[in-house]
Amino acid sequence: MTFHHALGLGIGTLNSKGQWLEVFFPAPQASPKDETVQGLAAILGGETTAQLTKDQLSTLAASGTDLAELATKLQGSSKPVVAVLLKENAAPKTVPEAYLKLHLLSHRLVRPHGTVLDGIFGVLPNVAWTSQGAIDPEELEDIQLEARMKGEFISVDCVDKFPKMTNYVVPKGVRIAHTARVRLGAYLGAGTTVMHEGFVNFNGGTVGKSMIEGRISAGVMVGENSDLGGGCSTMGTLSGGGNMVISVGEKCLIGANGGTGIPLGDRCTVEAGLYVTAGTKVVLLDDKNQEVKRVKARDLAGKSDLLFRRNSLTGAVECKTNKNAVALNEELHAN
Amino acid sequence: MTFHHALGLGIGTLNSKGQWLEVFFPAPQASPKDETVQGLAAILGGETTAQLTKDQLSTLAASGTDLAELATKLQGSSKPVVAVLLKENAAPKTVPEAYLKLHLLSHRLVRPHGTVLDGIFGVLPNVAWTSQGAIDPEELEDIQLEARMKGEFISVDCVDKFPKMTNYVVPKGVRIAHTARVRLGAYLGAGTTVMHEGFVNFNGGTVGKSMIEGRISAGVMVGENSDLGGGCSTMGTLSGGGNMVISVGEKCLIGANGGTGIPLGDRCTVEAGLYVTAGTKVVLLDDKNQEVKRVKARDLAGKSDLLFRRNSLTGAVECKTNKNAVALNEELHAN
Amino acid sequence: MTFHHALGLGIGTLNSKGQWLEVFFPAPQASPKDETVQGLAAILGGETTAQLTKDQLSTLAASGTDLAELATKLQGSSKPVVAVLLKENAAPKTVPEAYLKLHLLSHRLVRPHGTVLDGIFGVLPNVAWTSQGAIDPEELEDIQLEARMKGEFISVDCVDKFPKMTNYVVPKGVRIAHTARVRLGAYLGAGTTVMHEGFVNFNGGTVGKSMIEGRISAGVMVGENSDLGGGCSTMGTLSGGGNMVISVGEKCLIGANGGTGIPLGDRCTVEAGLYVTAGTKVVLLDDKNQEVKRVKARDLAGKSDLLFRRNSLTGAVECKTNKNAVALNEELHAN
Repeated sequence: MTFHHALGLGIGTLNSKGQWLEVFFPAPQASPKDETVQGLAAILGGETTAQLTKDQLSTLAASGTDLAELATKLQGSSKPVVAVLLKENAAPKTVPEAYLKLHLLSHRLVRPHGTVLDGIFGVLPNVAWTSQGAIDPEELEDIQLEARMKGEFISVDCVDKFPKMTNYVVPKGVRIAHTARVRLGAYLGAGTTVMHEGFVNFNGGTVGKSMIEGRISAGVMVGENSDLGGGCSTMGTLSGGGNMVISVGEKCLIGANGGTGIPLGDRCTVEAGLYVTAGTKVVLLDDKNQEVKRVKARDLAGKSDLLFRRNSLTGAVECKTNKNAVALNEELHAN
Repeated sequence: MTFHHALGLGIGTLNSKGQWLEVFFPAPQASPKDETVQGLAAILGGETTAQLTKDQLSTLAASGTDLAELATKLQGSSKPVVAVLLKENAAPKTVPEAYLKLHLLSHRLVRPHGTVLDGIFGVLPNVAWTSQGAIDPEELEDIQLEARMKGEFISVDCVDKFPKMTNYVVPKGVRIAHTARVRLGAYLGAGTTVMHEGFVNFNGGTVGKSMIEGRISAGVMVGENSDLGGGCSTMGTLSGGGNMVISVGEKCLIGANGGTGIPLGDRCTVEAGLYVTAGTKVVLLDDKNQEVKRVKARDLAGKSDLLFRRNSLTGAVECKTNKNAVALNEELHAN
Repeated sequence: MTFHHALGLGIGTLNSKGQWLEVFFPAPQASPKDETVQGLAAILGGETTAQLTKDQLSTLAASGTDLAELATKLQGSSKPVVAVLLKENAAPKTVPEAYLKLHLLSHRLVRPHGTVLDGIFGVLPNVAWTSQGAIDPEELEDIQLEARMKGEFISVDCVDKFPKMTNYVVPKGVRIAHTARVRLGAYLGAGTTVMHEGFVNFNGGTVGKSMIEGRISAGVMVGENSDLGGGCSTMGTLSGGGNMVISVGEKCLIGANGGTGIPLGDRCTVEAGLYVTAGTKVVLLDDKNQEVKRVKARDLAGKSDLLFRRNSLTGAVECKTNKNAVALNEELHAN
């Protein structure tokens, strides 16, 4: 049997037309075992995505593979059960495939950029995420009126293609003060705290211990022991940031309300309130604060041990060697 | 019959003193038909707001007007039903009137500034919006304790005069990643995406397609194909922004963590991290980046094709002709 | 009887191992009366924290002290009842003690810094705050799957050591547009409005009337009639702000997307978009805008009547006497 990218058994929601709105995969698998693949492939018969019948679930439950236990449990499900088997790491073609890929990321089974997500915006439907679960926005109006008449209350918390991560998976060793700001598909390393002002988009996240009070755009990874200050910004490639994939190395600090439009190496600091874009002209200073030369920030992309600041007397953006590695507050960061 | 501003049938919540806390209007009408007005006026007998009796609802249900179908449905309501008929576009005087006006905006039946909202802060009561619906804050404490004792859990999500829009209406063709940040009374054009960091106050919003990751203050409108970057700010007149009503034209981009205190024309860009206030002195540059003259930003209010940036070597805020019209990422913006 | 710091009766949640996850104290007491202390001490027998038996609750209910009424009510609780009696104002040692202290703050019974919170991060467990209440994150996965199979939906809103305040107490006279951004332990004075972009950490808050659209870090107090503009930042000592405790005096305004790393006196203004850190070099100007001298911002800590701005032509951060005291919009700020 050849290598397979991933597989999963999930419980999903269909709209009134029988279309998938979303799928919850309690235990997705990346690079699954051969026997698991064979067991599932026998049932799917060449398909990558299929809603399972009672009989198919029974077969899986009796398969002796590492899907047997979950399949046994799911026999008790009152909601539709779906299986996905991805041979290739290819662009997702169905809603369950897209959801499986997002789960792989949030379960830390693949790193950001480790599973192909091309065209995912076109695959995912817009969904109203409510206190009663996922509802097709086209069907919401009637449901809201019916509920009101009965004296019930439906909270509509999100109307989007991506749900919040924690309703699907809460990775070990993280704190997320306000979960509405972390999308399914985010990758949060153990030891990460995302504060109320933090945000993590899908296909981005943190390697390990870090304090995130700023915004991690899609595709952006933040290295170990780095801090994003309150309200700071990392420029996303989806938002016109160009082709350069932004990343933040280890032991970096982007100050509150600051931002970066270039990838940062290790031990870099961007001063609070300063936004360094790729086109920012920067004055390089030596140890004695004398000008060495002037460069565009993009020429400093990925370099380590840099401190970016705006000289508060001249207004010039300056860059010098960073002597203050960020010292994380031990008590605060203890998960 | 003379022209009428609006009317609506709604389901509302009363506190223990019989005062309205809020009203949900499933199908409000602006500029209603004469026969609809006459049918409703006959029941209200000169009042603009009234809680309807069973008999009055029956009369409406049998009226043959375009309120008949909704009235028929509402006969099954276990919660109080209210009718509002607004002849003039005048300042709201009752809670149901204020809610009707906010619904008109969010249903796109009137544009921001199209319905008079003077004094609305004085009319609207402060309400605790909870997982069990709207509760008078004065009555909340006991309810919370009773629930706790029963092992139940009440989430108090908002304590405010304005509720979140999506619990009342989700306009077609929008995505709102985190709905708590869009107030009832916001106007969102079809094709708008409000990301997690976006915010839209009442009586403000977007004309059509746009990507909102920044804050739209009360009264501010954003034109078609414009982007507000993450965490950017539009100054509100309520917050000391003075008398100048801020607006953003078509194809504009306000960069992440930037802001504007002046109205922008079309195809304007404000660089990431730059806040242009009305009093900011700006150096106007020609095509060869030579200084033409110095003006206050307020003198550039409403002008098109401007690029605002802070020179990263001199610290001066500069303005030149904008050659880079914002090109929205097609995949990302596809609703 | 000697002076006691505080006491309270609460209802709490235990995980499957019998460990406290959180406690709700409906009516905590600071500096309790002698007879109340004696009544409770007799039951606790030297302990500071204890889960109460039915018999102990009966004794309290019959005690004739001002705990009798609440104790009578709590006899009907289906969830565990806990009592805490704090003789000293010492570092919290148990979960109920820590929760009592956070309640004292949010009930305005002590001011920020008025109750010792040393080591609270170590005492408080990480909790998943869900639509079904507090759940141990270790126990969440199974609960989520079980719910899904039954067609139910659990929203996981927060995974953190601190819950949101409003699920425990909604102080009189406040509006909080989006409650997920105010932690239990925040102190909000009467007349405070916290807008959607506002944030208040524990052990910080507002003295009285103010409009908070920015972030109040742990330990930071904001004086009467001061405004924090949208997205503005106050630097926290937990986040590397050093030893200087930040505060904001009366009638101050920090503009949108601005920030302060020094304590501000009264009637100070920080311009929109400007971040003043302790190390910022500032040009002091006289009445005629002539330079007087250059200082570090930390030398201006706590001084009143200052206006901080960045000269938009030279890029220099300047400071002059503030002539524009913030005039709050009366309608907007009326709670």
